Formats: sequence, C-alpha cells, structure tokens
Amino acid sequence: MQIIKTIELMQEVSEKWRMDGNIISFVPTMGFLHQGHIELLRVGREKGDRLIMSIFVNPTQFGPKEDYEKYPRDTGGDLNNARSAGVDAVFMPTVEEMYPEGFQSTVRLEEITQHLCGKSRPGHFAGVTIVVGKLFNITKPHLAIFGEKDYQQLIVIKQMVKDLNMGIEVIGVPTVREKDGLAMSSRNNYLSSEERASALSLKKGLDLARDMVAKGERNPAKIKNAVMELILNHPFTEIDYIALCNPEKLTDIKRVDRPCLLALAVRVGNTRLIDNVILREN
Amino acid sequence: MQIIKTIELMQEVSEKWRMDGNIISFVPTMGFLHQGHIELLRVGREKGDRLIMSIFVNPTQFGPKEDYEKYPRDTGGDLNNARSAGVDAVFMPTVEEMYPEGFQSTVRLEEITQHLCGKSRPGHFAGVTIVVGKLFNITKPHLAIFGEKDYQQLIVIKQMVKDLNMGIEVIGVPTVREKDGLAMSSRNNYLSSEERASALSLKKGLDLARDMVAKGERNPAKIKNAVMELILNHPFTEIDYIALCNPEKLTDIKRVDRPCLLALAVRVGNTRLIDNVILREN
Repeated sequence: MQIIKTIELMQEVSEKWRMDGNIISFVPTMGFLHQGHIELLRVGREKGDRLIMSIFVNPTQFGPKEDYEKYPRDTGGDLNNARSAGVDAVFMPTVEEMYPEGFQSTVRLEEITQHLCGKSRPGHFAGVTIVVGKLFNITKPHLAIFGEKDYQQLIVIKQMVKDLNMGIEVIGVPTVREKDGLAMSSRNNYLSSEERASALSLKKGLDLARDMVAKGERNPAKIKNAVMELILNHPFTEIDYIALCNPEKLTDIKRVDRPCLLALAVRVGNTRLIDNVILREN
Repeated sequence: MQIIKTIELMQEVSEKWRMDGNIISFVPTMGFLHQGHIELLRVGREKGDRLIMSIFVNPTQFGPKEDYEKYPRDTGGDLNNARSAGVDAVFMPTVEEMYPEGFQSTVRLEEITQHLCGKSRPGHFAGVTIVVGKLFNITKPHLAIFGEKDYQQLIVIKQMVKDLNMGIEVIGVPTVREKDGLAMSSRNNYLSSEERASALSLKKGLDLARDMVAKGERNPAKIKNAVMELILNHPFTEIDYIALCNPEKLTDIKRVDRPCLLALAVRVGNTRLIDNVILREN
C-alpha cells in the first residue's frame, strides 16, 4: 500500500493506473475509520481494480464554531484498516498542500444546498464540494463511493459531478449501524455513555416514521411531530431539523404519496448527529 | 474532422485518445473565428497529437444587457477554418446540452475576478469558469490554449486549473493584431468604419504608455492620464477602465518598478473592446 502525501505524485500514480486500463475506485474520508468506512472500502475494492482512499480533515467544511480542531484523528489505526481493506494507495495531504497561499476558488451548488444541513451549517457544502472536486481531479477515479448516512452530501456530490461533467460514477452505500441501530459516525466518539443511549432516539424516530407510513399516515406534519416527541423524550437531545422532503430536490413535501426522504439532525449534548431513511408509501 | 454535439461522445473520443497515449490540445472558442483563433489552433496543433476546438457561445458569461443575442455566428466558416487548421474534433454542443434542467453549480474565483473586467462585468468570469471547467472535463485535454488579449480570462483559468488541480497546462498566446495594430476580436465586426478608425486608439494608448515607461516615467497616474487623453481624443470613445496593475494579482500598483500590466477596456460606439500590454521598466 502506497502512502502518498503530494498532489503531484497522486496524480502521476492515478494517471498511470488509468493508462494501464485499471478501473479506479475512490473513497474519500476524514479518517478515524469505522465500520461504515470499511463498508465503503469493501464496495470500492469489489468494483474497482485499484482502490484509493484519502484521509483529509478538511477545514473548509467546518464552521468557525464547529469541531475541526477536536475532530478525532488516528492515522496509525486508519492505515492498518486501509491495509486490511485492500487499499492500494492512501492519499493524505497536508492542509497547505490542498489550500496553498493564493487559493481562491469555490464550487457551489445553488439549490440543493439550501436545505437540511446546508441551512444549519452555512458554508459546509461549499467546503465539501471544493475539497471533493479537488480530490476527484487528484485521484482521477472512475468510481467514487459515499455513505448514505450523509445523504445530502451524496446527492450534492452527484449533482456536482453531473453539472461539471466529471465523468465519475458516484455510488451511495447504505448506512452501517451498530447492533442497537445507531448509525456509524466518527462523531459517536464524542458521546458519553448516557448520551450514547439517547442517541438511539434518531434511529427510533426513523423507525417510528416508517411504521406510521406503513400504517397509512400521509401527513408530513403528523409524522414529524411524532418523531420530534419521541426524540425529545430522550435526555440531552435538541433538534436541529426534522425534514420530510423530495429525495432529489430536498424540498419539503406536502403529502407522503411517493418515496420521500426523512432526514434528521439532532444534538445530543454537544454532539450533532444526523440520520435518514427513505420512506415508501407501501 | 469529427463534429461532435454531445458531451457523452466527446468524452468517449477524448478518453480513447488519451488511452492511446495521445497528447490532447484544446482551444475553446465562441466561434466566428479570426486570425487570433487560427493562431491558437496553430499552437495547439504544434504542441499536441490531437487538437480539439469547441464552438459554444456561452450564455452564462454575458450580462443581461450584453450582446449574447447578437454575438456573431458563422458555423460554416468556422468549420472550414477548423479543417484548414488541422482540427481533429470540433465540439459544438447546444445550450441545453451544457446547461440542462436542474443545473445549479458555480465555480468562482474570489480575488482576481474583483478587478478590471470582473468589476465592470459582474458575473462574467463566473460564466467563464463554469463553462471552461465543464469543457475541460468534457474534452480532457493535456494542453489548453488561450489568447493573451483576454488577459484576465487567461490568468483566471490558470488559477482555476491550479486551485482545482485540473492537471492541464494552460498556454497563453500573444495577441494577434491587424496590420494597423487593432487587436483581433470577433467584436471588431460590430464597428463602423469610422469607429474602426477610433478603435486604433487602444493600441496607440498601449504604445504611448510603453514609450513613457521606456523614457523613465514611473508614475501610474501620469501614464494612465496620458493614455486616457489620447483615447478620448478619438471620436466615439468612452473609457470603461484603464488599469496599471500587478500582472498576477491584478491589484493596482503604486509605481512602475517591475513588469506590470496595462489593461484597457474602451467602448467605441456601442462596442466594448479590450487590449493590454505588459510594461517593463527597461
């Protein structure tokens, strides 16, 4: 497994792999790998001839009061996991390598970033699109693998790839959960054991909504209220948003009469967690 | 020479050329080719194994009151010129192909677009960067050739390529001029013969500035005033800007003590023309 720290070398390696006819899979990460990442790597390994993983805690996607500084890091563990998962190259640049002096470009999506996390984290998706755009140009993949837990991120990336004609197939992988249902996230690491118990309310809320829809409920407000009540019945929880929306445009829906996205962002103590499910009316 | 109208086919052709080991040169144009474009094609032909030219009058780089609708078009003539210049593929998509429904991405450069034409044409460079970014991803060139007449455009593209790690060599080609000095431009076509005579004032202004610097003048204000006076002594002229600036950052300079850019934008009748020269103090 190669560990590559410069953009120039990564581009050289990727270009050579492409020229040799290999299909390149790419899994971008911010490190501190959990089973969700491992699943992304498994899919990447299965679908590509060469598998590249990046580790880069990207400062531009964190807000000024967010957790960039304390975001968990474990490079040694990540490299071991990458090796076990059959990664061919780990790209791990410094911040200066990615954003040198004079850097001034932005890539923005004007519509689908206005909703959900884009609303509560202004600038977040601009940070995501610029770094992923750069990483795509650096690693030159045919396939890029993202988790469905970050649902909005997934569709933002898909739209960017489409709009900019990047010629990359963006693959979403179903959320991997702990046995008790908590969606895997590096931020789970922040939770105390009591908060950890309350964090289960996100998945319980999603399950409740699914049950309500299965039983015929079509009114988004009623579903959202029930989910809200369930979550707020758990200690330490504070709701950022509960949205029932069109799964492509992320605009609010008026009635559950086709597949729609239920997306949640909830603070548990100081930790902001997200989760989502696609609800189908049958 | 292939004439290609869809993004999908262009990407397929380019990818194949790359996989076969060819160096691809790319010359983006808005059509209505003149000798300036032909020179870009000559350079592209010389430096690459495969030469792609695009013809696309890009609506997003025109302001609401600008000349998108009346921008001159001559596809038949352009294709003949392209053939003579040894172009291998002409990419000429429709507006709908480039900007389908749901399109919502922007690529912007925050600093160097604040000056010169960026100041007087808000949104212009955002239109340029999004279309050129797309065209680069569609034509997958190793080399991209631009004219130095559109100096700010050239350095905006260079910075975008650097910031986004596009891995393309951006080559600037010196401005091609008519015998009497007028910089070649598709917009020269708008000029009446009297306006055409006045349009020579741009080049005369650049020459005057060069002479002043050669004779020791170091004061930007004095140089700009002299150029302004010369230009305004010609009928139909109205000055948009005369700038003496740092050739990389495009910020105003206080003294001509290193190579600097003199850039002009002048309306002659209803036609906005630009020109520029690098001034060196010796």
